[in-house]
Amino acid sequence: MSRPQTEEQAVDSEGDSSLHRRDEEGTQSSHRMLGFSDALLSIIATVMILPVTHTEISPEQFDKSIQKLLATRIAVYLMTFLIVTVAWAAHTRLFQVVGKIDDTLALLNLACMMTITLLPYTFSLMVTFPDVPLGIFLFCVCVIAIGSVQALIVGYAFHFPHLLNLQIQCSTYRAQSRRHILRLVLRGPALCFVAAVFSLFFFPLSYVLMVTVIFLPHISKATTWCKDKLMGHRESPAHNVEPFSIDLHAPLSKERVEAFSDGVYAIVATLLILDICEDNVPDPKDVQEKFSGSLVAALGAYGPQFLAYFGSFATVGLLWFAHHSLFLHVRKATQTMGLLNILSLAFVGGLPLAYQQTSAFARQPRDELERVRVSCAIIFFASIFQFAIWTAALLHQTETLQPAVRFGGQEHAFMFAKLALYPCASLLAFAATCLLSRFSTAIFHLMQIAVPFAFLLLRLLVRLTLAALQVLWNLRPEHPQPGQGEPEAQSQLLPAPC
Amino acid sequence: MSRPQTEEQAVDSEGDSSLHRRDEEGTQSSHRMLGFSDALLSIIATVMILPVTHTEISPEQFDKSIQKLLATRIAVYLMTFLIVTVAWAAHTRLFQVVGKIDDTLALLNLACMMTITLLPYTFSLMVTFPDVPLGIFLFCVCVIAIGSVQALIVGYAFHFPHLLNLQIQCSTYRAQSRRHILRLVLRGPALCFVAAVFSLFFFPLSYVLMVTVIFLPHISKATTWCKDKLMGHRESPAHNVEPFSIDLHAPLSKERVEAFSDGVYAIVATLLILDICEDNVPDPKDVQEKFSGSLVAALGAYGPQFLAYFGSFATVGLLWFAHHSLFLHVRKATQTMGLLNILSLAFVGGLPLAYQQTSAFARQPRDELERVRVSCAIIFFASIFQFAIWTAALLHQTETLQPAVRFGGQEHAFMFAKLALYPCASLLAFAATCLLSRFSTAIFHLMQIAVPFAFLLLRLLVRLTLAALQVLWNLRPEHPQPGQGEPEAQSQLLPAPC
Repeated sequence: MSRPQTEEQAVDSEGDSSLHRRDEEGTQSSHRMLGFSDALLSIIATVMILPVTHTEISPEQFDKSIQKLLATRIAVYLMTFLIVTVAWAAHTRLFQVVGKIDDTLALLNLACMMTITLLPYTFSLMVTFPDVPLGIFLFCVCVIAIGSVQALIVGYAFHFPHLLNLQIQCSTYRAQSRRHILRLVLRGPALCFVAAVFSLFFFPLSYVLMVTVIFLPHISKATTWCKDKLMGHRESPAHNVEPFSIDLHAPLSKERVEAFSDGVYAIVATLLILDICEDNVPDPKDVQEKFSGSLVAALGAYGPQFLAYFGSFATVGLLWFAHHSLFLHVRKATQTMGLLNILSLAFVGGLPLAYQQTSAFARQPRDELERVRVSCAIIFFASIFQFAIWTAALLHQTETLQPAVRFGGQEHAFMFAKLALYPCASLLAFAATCLLSRFSTAIFHLMQIAVPFAFLLLRLLVRLTLAALQVLWNLRPEHPQPGQGEPEAQSQLLPAPC
Repeated sequence: MSRPQTEEQAVDSEGDSSLHRRDEEGTQSSHRMLGFSDALLSIIATVMILPVTHTEISPEQFDKSIQKLLATRIAVYLMTFLIVTVAWAAHTRLFQVVGKIDDTLALLNLACMMTITLLPYTFSLMVTFPDVPLGIFLFCVCVIAIGSVQALIVGYAFHFPHLLNLQIQCSTYRAQSRRHILRLVLRGPALCFVAAVFSLFFFPLSYVLMVTVIFLPHISKATTWCKDKLMGHRESPAHNVEPFSIDLHAPLSKERVEAFSDGVYAIVATLLILDICEDNVPDPKDVQEKFSGSLVAALGAYGPQFLAYFGSFATVGLLWFAHHSLFLHVRKATQTMGLLNILSLAFVGGLPLAYQQTSAFARQPRDELERVRVSCAIIFFASIFQFAIWTAALLHQTETLQPAVRFGGQEHAFMFAKLALYPCASLLAFAATCLLSRFSTAIFHLMQIAVPFAFLLLRLLVRLTLAALQVLWNLRPEHPQPGQGEPEAQSQLLPAPC
């Protein structure tokens, strides 16, 4: 949840000279409002996992209806996550154009946030009543409302141009930029308006239009990419440079990607403690009757839940740690990296499910194998998409990465090890449960305990491995640059990650 | 959730020259880790309101046991909020000393966070089993664990002094600072160790010691203040300047106060949508049976819940807006302001309770008067403490505030109106329910709808009021400075807020 404060600091340092302008125009740096919006959006995106984890499953009644309920809730979670990330990306674009805010814009932004919070409810309605067009109609109304508020924000900001970012403020193409950004903002709502009309008499088409709206940025990117490939380079680069710097293909703001990710990791890590506090405090009567008054014995019965909590918090924390380490070395986040990050976060949001699965071991030891495998799979996908962010960044490494982690950089091997640790560990655990299915729970817990120590000792381990490899491969002593031995070893060791 | 990025940017701009140092020492700017910690801590502090709001109350069974359960859960919420804010303040102090982090410190910080998340559980145990010493024993173990991890962080940072903040790094009193900060970090855990020992044979004393630990910073501040008053000025100011710049009386980092507050506001605003999505999706069978298949009619029954949700989100959002406006003009946050902010946030965390109360109207219209009053009271206290932050800041206005909002500043009257709006509105609504008790729900909803519009038109309203007052009071035209009429009017209008 970080935001550069340079703008505000600049205003502050102007001191009294800036006062008059402040009063006249009432402008403020937007960094805190954006941080708050990121926090809100990341929580809304993730919180719909709670109904999934609260689905009570016991082997006796694991029938069709429960399966359907679970599938329904997972669908709502995934759709919510997707649409909120799309809304977040649009919000990021919008406030790359609007550089400063005043009170009216802050209040309009709050109205926009409130409308976005209603989207999960429309999904719940849609999934519970797939044959009734009301859900999709309400969804369309929400999207139209969001679009209208965003169009108001654009209109207001272009009416008071000192609120725009400096590049557009000084641009000669300002009117063109305005048309362009309004088209971007209103494209989705216009489609939704059509969908709302169709929902009244032929709603299956509305669903198709809704899917189009959700995937619009990616469809638009794909078509542009295809066009570029077909027609050679971009048709009019000279025309493109200034007015379209706000388009959908510009890299996302790295700070906002970090802030949104931090919000997701923080809420996922803390959702677990809520379950612990609500469900795992024994009932005084039970303690008296079942455990003859011994609270310690009663708590002992919850042992597996606590173990699962520790494991789960450690997993979320360490995935955040890997993400944090990676983004320390990232210069800017391309669209592909943003998409991979969102996929990774969607699986991170599923980790409370993995926790629920492992903590249910105590109750249903029969199907623990399935549960361990689901947990391993969720961890694997969350971490492999993190790894994919790095490989995507390496493809354009001069633009996207700091020199230290590029091919041949001093931190390259270390970063590789950091990001490869969880995919390898979860894959190993998954494979081990296939071979030693009787010890699957023990294997899973062993993994959860071993990985944090591996992270602590990672630097040492990487150095040892590299040194061992250096000895084994018997490197030529032709370029004995002091302190530069490692990168050499790395570039030989890692010709192409992935 | 904001953090200045200047340090990191400085490192980045050094480019390749900073690489070697980076590799050698592996240091990183700590801003993102602190933002993540703030998010985690604010969520943990607030999330314990959920068990309170999930307490099912119906007038038929509102007996002693339900009352006791509700009181228990409110007590857990308040204790958790208090202890987490104490832990947060200690964490802020610690990372004012430790300026940069490396991987080991980031992992130690995660361990510290994990231990803090267990504190709510120990409170739940304590409150559910007040006669069993296990809860307090576990609490003490947690605090000792947190203290040990923090001592490790201090030890590690002083062992690698490049991790310390520059002021201490260059100080000649470094060893003394280390002793001092270690004493601060280990003071609480030492008391808890004694409490843990006592919990084994005479646990009431443990509770007394626990309360001491929680209020330690404030007790310590009060004693220092009394000592200062009794002995005149501080005894050795020359000695105090450098090594004790890390002590408990220095102002808190404004950025971290903002980040923590943003986290609380964001989680409170979004807790509500979870209830809406989980509880207010009608059951397909019910729709078929009770509403003869009409989903619109079924949703109509949830109308009051949605109205309450809108009102509640608007209240949280606008309180955040007032907080945001205030802190835009704050230069640094003193300890008193920090304490008032935390009190305000504790009531903001209670807003979902107010929501639950108002959304229960539909079900139990009998005791709606009580519920409207509880809601008004929570909103009043949340907003009056915000107002108190401002008055506390005005007492030391040259240090704490930007010139624009000081007495006579151009934004003074406007800020006064912004912060006074909610206390006045909630007080007015409360008074109105006393006079017109039959229309209490209508009055409450009217307030929730009117206040956002008041915020939108506030600048206009304040100007109109000031102009009217200027005409009424018939100001002397001796100092007709153009554009300076307002501050004059303000200074006459507002001799001393509060």
